[in-house]
Amino acid sequence: MVRARTQRMLQLSLVVALAGAVWVSFRAQSPVREVSLLVTGGTVVTVDGARGIFAPGAVAVDGTDIVAVGPAADISNRFSARDRIDATGSVVIPGLINTHTHAPMVLYRGLADDVSLMDWLQRYIFPAEAKTVSPEMVRTGTRLAILEMIQSGTTAFADMYYFEEEIARVAKAAGMRAVPGQTIIQFPVADAKTPADGLTRAEAFIKEFQDDELIVPAVAPHAMYTLDAKSLVASRALANKYGVPVLIHFAETAAEVKNSETEHKMTPVRYLDSIGFWGPRTLAAHGVWVTAAEMPILRKHGVGISHNPESNMKLASGIAPVPEFMTAGLTVGLGTDGAASNNDLDMFEAMRQAALLHKLHSGDPRVIPAPAALEMATIAGARSLGLDRLIGSLEPGKRADLAVVSMASARQTPMYDPVSHLVYATRGDDVRTVVINGRVVMRDRKMLTLDEPAVLAEARKMAGSVRAAVTPATK
Amino acid sequence: MVRARTQRMLQLSLVVALAGAVWVSFRAQSPVREVSLLVTGGTVVTVDGARGIFAPGAVAVDGTDIVAVGPAADISNRFSARDRIDATGSVVIPGLINTHTHAPMVLYRGLADDVSLMDWLQRYIFPAEAKTVSPEMVRTGTRLAILEMIQSGTTAFADMYYFEEEIARVAKAAGMRAVPGQTIIQFPVADAKTPADGLTRAEAFIKEFQDDELIVPAVAPHAMYTLDAKSLVASRALANKYGVPVLIHFAETAAEVKNSETEHKMTPVRYLDSIGFWGPRTLAAHGVWVTAAEMPILRKHGVGISHNPESNMKLASGIAPVPEFMTAGLTVGLGTDGAASNNDLDMFEAMRQAALLHKLHSGDPRVIPAPAALEMATIAGARSLGLDRLIGSLEPGKRADLAVVSMASARQTPMYDPVSHLVYATRGDDVRTVVINGRVVMRDRKMLTLDEPAVLAEARKMAGSVRAAVTPATK
Repeated sequence: MVRARTQRMLQLSLVVALAGAVWVSFRAQSPVREVSLLVTGGTVVTVDGARGIFAPGAVAVDGTDIVAVGPAADISNRFSARDRIDATGSVVIPGLINTHTHAPMVLYRGLADDVSLMDWLQRYIFPAEAKTVSPEMVRTGTRLAILEMIQSGTTAFADMYYFEEEIARVAKAAGMRAVPGQTIIQFPVADAKTPADGLTRAEAFIKEFQDDELIVPAVAPHAMYTLDAKSLVASRALANKYGVPVLIHFAETAAEVKNSETEHKMTPVRYLDSIGFWGPRTLAAHGVWVTAAEMPILRKHGVGISHNPESNMKLASGIAPVPEFMTAGLTVGLGTDGAASNNDLDMFEAMRQAALLHKLHSGDPRVIPAPAALEMATIAGARSLGLDRLIGSLEPGKRADLAVVSMASARQTPMYDPVSHLVYATRGDDVRTVVINGRVVMRDRKMLTLDEPAVLAEARKMAGSVRAAVTPATK
Repeated sequence: MVRARTQRMLQLSLVVALAGAVWVSFRAQSPVREVSLLVTGGTVVTVDGARGIFAPGAVAVDGTDIVAVGPAADISNRFSARDRIDATGSVVIPGLINTHTHAPMVLYRGLADDVSLMDWLQRYIFPAEAKTVSPEMVRTGTRLAILEMIQSGTTAFADMYYFEEEIARVAKAAGMRAVPGQTIIQFPVADAKTPADGLTRAEAFIKEFQDDELIVPAVAPHAMYTLDAKSLVASRALANKYGVPVLIHFAETAAEVKNSETEHKMTPVRYLDSIGFWGPRTLAAHGVWVTAAEMPILRKHGVGISHNPESNMKLASGIAPVPEFMTAGLTVGLGTDGAASNNDLDMFEAMRQAALLHKLHSGDPRVIPAPAALEMATIAGARSLGLDRLIGSLEPGKRADLAVVSMASARQTPMYDPVSHLVYATRGDDVRTVVINGRVVMRDRKMLTLDEPAVLAEARKMAGSVRAAVTPATK
């Protein structure tokens, strides 16, 4: 009897084991999908609608797209991958979106600090630009800027400068997402003698990159004080013709508002409204001196704002009414501005500064809490560029733009809240790995799409010409 | 004749060669002094009286002291060294001096952000402190804080907390310079039931460290609103008896000033003056709400100010009148405050924030230029602690406290001005090597006086108790 019972148990065990094997095999074969990349083991901060955080979480990427985000165990069961990134001890975030910069100006970084705005422009930036801006300079500067941006977790940037076709080409080659805006400006500049020339160049530029998967070409009328009404309206018309974004500076300084009131009897916002400039897909940078009464005008046209707290502080421009923008229903993204007025392109600094500055200004330490600062640098930035269906959060169906951020340093120890740490205790240098459009562009600090030593050497070489351009000749 | 001539030339050559050899040998043996350490090849920013910069420069250190600073070639000719640090591509600066922190509070880093000051104190910090402050907690937190400080180029810090004898011992063991101030406070705290207990402990503490070469013991009456006049005066008397510094918080919030005016019919500055509190070697932290009329009182007593821009922003305390302090002849050092209100101890961030904040506030981008921010973090900090004869600049005769800061990153490229880059483009993480009192405490990011993994593990373990202390029990 003992023997018969043992036999039955053995038979039963065999059946269970076989069933288990079949089930495991079924689980392993049928629902497991092979994808191109799995980022697993880290705390995934999605910045999705529910502000979901998975710890530990994982992101499954196939080709250019995110196909799943969730708890690490769940994703590991459902996907196998040809490439894996172990994010243990790190936080995985949507790639940061810099909504306002002038990439090549990294070559003027630290060239003119602590001087009046007039000196900054007249004695340093304008002479340097007059003597050094060229396609080569733009390429060299953009490579350096993109190197710095990727190294600090930025995966997309909106740009306003000259020779934007060069910026677009360099970005594309580096696997970087960008919204380069071809500058339209009234006076002669390096790439255009007249606004009409600029518009012609902008149209050619739009055509070149119209259907690109990384580059969204844009038109960038410089500002209402550097363009006449005709050129402003023509810039708007060109953008509307192709459905591309418009980038513009506005209400940055008190002097700009005062001059506008003198010349046009209107503030910059109302003047631009009066000529029919405001329209869809507009990203307006700074807005320091916008009043509450003007916000409905911007809201009506869906204008996005790029807030640049560091530049506004360093150039003493003032404090943009960011909490008021948000209350008025405006979308506010974050920017660094050019490195000549910051002096870096680190969006972690921009997040921290936005959170600190508006607490101070409002007298309320609850204003711009850490999650709001992170949203400005991600999903709101995407929305301000009209790109929130594609980027700005970690959600299935969006493009795979993400950064893996280490939380291992003494400075980040201990960690009670990953979002607090991202904003208040993390630097761009903590970013270890960056993925853009599904492609790993930096892996464990090693750049895969740019030759880092060559980019630095080239930039240092060009700095010699810049220095010479602003140094008065001695006899 | 040709032959004779050749012979004479040969003889002459021999004489010249011999003379040369004798001269080289004389140069090599006689004036060359052997010292313990040479830091060579970098750009040396001395922050001395002439604000000298040597590029490339060198610093010769013998034992605890700097013996020479100058052009690299000159120093190399005059000194040989048992140890060398190659600072090529880096900037060598005086070690940064953090004039106000609460080191163990790194364990509360990010525990309570974006809440009102009342909630911050009542719901988080006070409960956490009531349940977790102990000698062990203070040791664990201080090790973590010193790790972070050394890694970010800070070589001395003034501290106000409990169990300061533990802080002093940990600092000494880590080779860190510190001015730990034993807290005197009216209500019962972890290390003292009464102010009298606190004063007794403070006196014992002063005696233990009176002649230490790294530790300068201090008395730290918490603030005018947490102590009665008797305890404030007794704190002053104790400090005067031993000639040690006094550390105190003052005029940090508008509410503090208002309450003082209600209770004492005087502002904090005037109240402390009326009871005879102000005196030599006092370092008063914050001073956000000091008026121009009060500055001469502080000046008369030689009171130093610790400016904490990041904490003042994050807690929405206000903006200290720093340019006005300077105009009034007051010495202003920089501090980070505790990591619970910052959230890090990186003095490079404090420098940048001081420079940006006062530009913004004054509306003048020339205010607090980069050299002034660097001075606040070095020589002015030393002066505010009465230690400027010993530290705060790279000069012969001072203690060798210095940091070697890399300038090689994309973020720092190109470099036109090393001082601009130190303030506007550099992070604590760029610091490669740190020397304190002539001893190399971190070399090429490797900690030599602290077991980094053990310090981090210990802190993470203790964070569990902190989290439990502020989490309401669930049923």
